[in-house]
Amino acid sequence: MNLRVSNRGEAMPASPIRKLVPYAEAAKKRGTKVYHLNIGQPDIETPAAVLDAVRHSDFKVLEYSHSAGNESYRRKLVSYYESVGVHVNHQQIIITTGGSEAILFGFMACLDPGDEVIIPEPFYANYNGFAVAAGVNVVPVTSHIENGFALPPIADFEKVITPKTKAIVICNPNNPTGYLYSKAELESLKEIVLKHNLYLFSDEAYREFSYTGELMSVMHLQGADDHLVVMDTISKRYSACGARLGALVTKNQAVLDAVMKFAQARLSPPSFAQIAGEAAIDLPADYFTGAKEEYQRRRDLLVRRLNAMEGVYCPNPGGAFYAMAKLPIDDSDKFCQWLLESFEHNGQTVMLAPATGFYGTPGLGKQEVRLAYVLNLEAIDKAMDCLEAALKVYPGKQ
Amino acid sequence: MNLRVSNRGEAMPASPIRKLVPYAEAAKKRGTKVYHLNIGQPDIETPAAVLDAVRHSDFKVLEYSHSAGNESYRRKLVSYYESVGVHVNHQQIIITTGGSEAILFGFMACLDPGDEVIIPEPFYANYNGFAVAAGVNVVPVTSHIENGFALPPIADFEKVITPKTKAIVICNPNNPTGYLYSKAELESLKEIVLKHNLYLFSDEAYREFSYTGELMSVMHLQGADDHLVVMDTISKRYSACGARLGALVTKNQAVLDAVMKFAQARLSPPSFAQIAGEAAIDLPADYFTGAKEEYQRRRDLLVRRLNAMEGVYCPNPGGAFYAMAKLPIDDSDKFCQWLLESFEHNGQTVMLAPATGFYGTPGLGKQEVRLAYVLNLEAIDKAMDCLEAALKVYPGKQ
Repeated sequence: MNLRVSNRGEAMPASPIRKLVPYAEAAKKRGTKVYHLNIGQPDIETPAAVLDAVRHSDFKVLEYSHSAGNESYRRKLVSYYESVGVHVNHQQIIITTGGSEAILFGFMACLDPGDEVIIPEPFYANYNGFAVAAGVNVVPVTSHIENGFALPPIADFEKVITPKTKAIVICNPNNPTGYLYSKAELESLKEIVLKHNLYLFSDEAYREFSYTGELMSVMHLQGADDHLVVMDTISKRYSACGARLGALVTKNQAVLDAVMKFAQARLSPPSFAQIAGEAAIDLPADYFTGAKEEYQRRRDLLVRRLNAMEGVYCPNPGGAFYAMAKLPIDDSDKFCQWLLESFEHNGQTVMLAPATGFYGTPGLGKQEVRLAYVLNLEAIDKAMDCLEAALKVYPGKQ
Repeated sequence: MNLRVSNRGEAMPASPIRKLVPYAEAAKKRGTKVYHLNIGQPDIETPAAVLDAVRHSDFKVLEYSHSAGNESYRRKLVSYYESVGVHVNHQQIIITTGGSEAILFGFMACLDPGDEVIIPEPFYANYNGFAVAAGVNVVPVTSHIENGFALPPIADFEKVITPKTKAIVICNPNNPTGYLYSKAELESLKEIVLKHNLYLFSDEAYREFSYTGELMSVMHLQGADDHLVVMDTISKRYSACGARLGALVTKNQAVLDAVMKFAQARLSPPSFAQIAGEAAIDLPADYFTGAKEEYQRRRDLLVRRLNAMEGVYCPNPGGAFYAMAKLPIDDSDKFCQWLLESFEHNGQTVMLAPATGFYGTPGLGKQEVRLAYVLNLEAIDKAMDCLEAALKVYPGKQ
């Protein structure tokens, strides 16, 4: 009799993006250049000062840090949060191994198996994975490309709230839609979490990349402190994805106490990364201006090119570095695979993320793809040439 | 109405060692020097070549790595494992964020909520934490200080096996006991996991620190490949605890596939650490000889001093860098707190880990403490002076 993996291990979703990787690898082996608009790995250089802090570090023993992260780093983060209008002390910040661990810790500490979290869809696919790990059920409420993926009406949330509902999860600015929630939308979320006594988890990985409005955090909301938990990361902010450094931020002491126990079990977050993270706080204030302007130019080009294609619609994203586009196709999974397997344009093709993986409701997203504008303008332009040519010859065109 | 944390968050055990930290901090504030024999943070320097590899690294973007870890690192690890008689290929190794994540991934991928794992006690306290995170129940079988914490008789395992039992967890060489399982003991574990179709999880964090016998891995066992899962880490091996770099190693393809999905959800292990880990494989073969000799000298001193104290018994540990000692005291938790709160010897005291935190059976370990010989010989000698003096005046002496 064979040993079985757990039901949880079987239920764990495979990455909807990474399943296309073998096709991309095969395309490259054939000599086709692949423009990667499929993942959020920015090409922007990690600030030299951040890498240099690690390179110039001077210690003899690579020790465990405090389970909550080095106090010196947490104290510096207090000033960073001040700079974005979030007033917390260093004991309200627990350093995590990437934003990923902040999400996992939040789910683990606040939710029990069988509990439900409501998430506006399309949403970051890995929330599904952390939900399975924590035994939690994701209940999607659908946002729509027609209004740029604005927050669904509060009535849609009310409809799916049950006694098992414990939290609402948002990502702001949003991955995958690029939508930037307005102050009014966040206020309406506050009302609903207060009314139903829910947590509001806010993944703010892309906080600085806001193009159309002011930079917002759920922590700006007044009178709901105990309900608010921010999941944060330096990955995108400083183009430092490989550091694996994030933070869970809340004023809810019971949540901090519970999260701390999960943090102690895994001993500490990575030490090199904390040196990098600490140096990042000292970057000049205009650092984000440069990075943001670059992303905005890319967004403008990408959105313009997409909307100029026949039958394509792409709402202008207000933040992050993602755009969702509706394409005149039968099935985005098939189309994205076909782009890698059966198509090339002057020896080039483009890798996109099928939107189906970002929806919790089966069947949605079949005509949508996510594009991450993490390549330079020239590469984006060429990638759009590929997509435009592809849509003219794709057999499943509609 | 207040928001509640999850039942899981409440059930999560606080670190039994770290709860003494405030008392140690208070002692230091009073000017008392504290010898830390309480945690496995070695004072041995991280090899310069390992740190230098990071310091001399030359890249522009700190990118995500492959979710299973860099292929170059995994390929080099194949040669490391060859050198310890473990024959695996790079696809049978998944790089994790510390050994901690390897344990969590193993539990998550192989065990469902309500399943049981059998662990010889005393055991590494954080297994409790990962078990709570995974919803798994730990069933202890007791090993005894009288025979040096040898593997309990197989009959003791048979007695507690139920239809819910899915795995046995061992740590070899053992933390907290320092016991090194013999080939015969591992063979008897193999028979039982084959007979009852269980996984055998082996935490081999201290593999190189074996003083009395040959270096053993469960992967040396023949004919049980699908049952064997190794949780590994570079933390102790190269005195690089802060790197947070480990590995899960198994030949069971279904387990690899399931673990890979958990690995994808958290994107990647830390990139700086993987540079360090790769450099560590190139250390000269005699690196471990020096480190091991140093630990052995410390062990010899510690064990000799302990056994020379009246009413104290400390079996000679065969591996790792821990020793368990039985003391003539009423309650190890009270004693360890008293050492920090109410005692000093020439302005010095010692911090030990009460063994109660390492037992799953309530009430056990009340006369035992764990000592980590991670300080130099002079410090260990002075720490033993403190302990000897303390045992003469401790009010709860028995």
